[in-house]
Amino acid sequence: MPHIKLDPELPGILGLFAFRPETARPLGELAEVLLRGPSTLGRGERELIAAVVSAGNECFFCASAHGAVAAVQLDGGMAVVDAARQDPGTAPVSAKLKALLRIAALVRADGRAVDDEAVDAAKTAGASELEIHDTVLIAAAFCMFNRYVDGLATLAPREPRGYAEHARKIVEGGYRAAPERT
Amino acid sequence: MPHIKLDPELPGILGLFAFRPETARPLGELAEVLLRGPSTLGRGERELIAAVVSAGNECFFCASAHGAVAAVQLDGGMAVVDAARQDPGTAPVSAKLKALLRIAALVRADGRAVDDEAVDAAKTAGASELEIHDTVLIAAAFCMFNRYVDGLATLAPREPRGYAEHARKIVEGGYRAAPERT
Repeated sequence: MPHIKLDPELPGILGLFAFRPETARPLGELAEVLLRGPSTLGRGERELIAAVVSAGNECFFCASAHGAVAAVQLDGGMAVVDAARQDPGTAPVSAKLKALLRIAALVRADGRAVDDEAVDAAKTAGASELEIHDTVLIAAAFCMFNRYVDGLATLAPREPRGYAEHARKIVEGGYRAAPERT
Repeated sequence: MPHIKLDPELPGILGLFAFRPETARPLGELAEVLLRGPSTLGRGERELIAAVVSAGNECFFCASAHGAVAAVQLDGGMAVVDAARQDPGTAPVSAKLKALLRIAALVRADGRAVDDEAVDAAKTAGASELEIHDTVLIAAAFCMFNRYVDGLATLAPREPRGYAEHARKIVEGGYRAAPERT
């Protein structure tokens, strides 16, 4: 049961967005810019970083929600998402994305763990400074979203159907829209 | 040295805000709403939560910057900030703020660590649901800001003078303003 009174029809962060619209606005805007705004990283690649970090933090809601959005937008679909959540080093993704997923894993553990070696490897694999910046911020932002969702003990449906439906809405409408009852 | 090319005149998050204004906008807005927006928690109390979480994550820049802002806005000034960074349980703050700092420490470790006991203790000490929500989100947000600042190895001046100056600017102008060279 959530630690505060939330609309039981709105799982995960959706209930929190409805509870506190003043903070929902910048949080939705941040997700929109980072995950869907103009970028040389694909939307599927950015969602995959979010899903892998959330899986590392064992946040079931965020890992499921962003895994579903990544699956819709990545060649290879859910098989690639599952492989990356298992082991980014052997997942069927580009060398650049592998190196960025490595940086994201270090950020998740502790910002100070990101070393020159990991950054140089990403640059060697073709990552730009902006791509490295955005990877660090996506990973950091999901260390926030995961703690927000789990710190208030929000509801996370176990069955994948709801996440797939939600993913279609996000792919069409983005993160800025007010949460809807599903 | 930072992992990406940042303006050397802009330490910590200020250089990152200048590097990527598209993400700076929602991040500044989030800080403004959470730390300075209308709330039954004082601005000093909210900055203290940010400073204590940042100290726990050993993020020198954020701990110094928000410690300085908290000190300006709290009765007791830097002595209270230092005591809370050392041990929130014995710091000279209200029972409610002690209980909220306890929740913030749990969020910092792992969102799932926040248990009914910690939430009930905060409610018993007079915390509202909104105050508990905002505490969880402040703590979660600083798990992001700390990783963002340290994950890109931004510069953090060691001497307290710059932080005190920066604190005066924040107290006057808030977090929405574009970063200025100091």
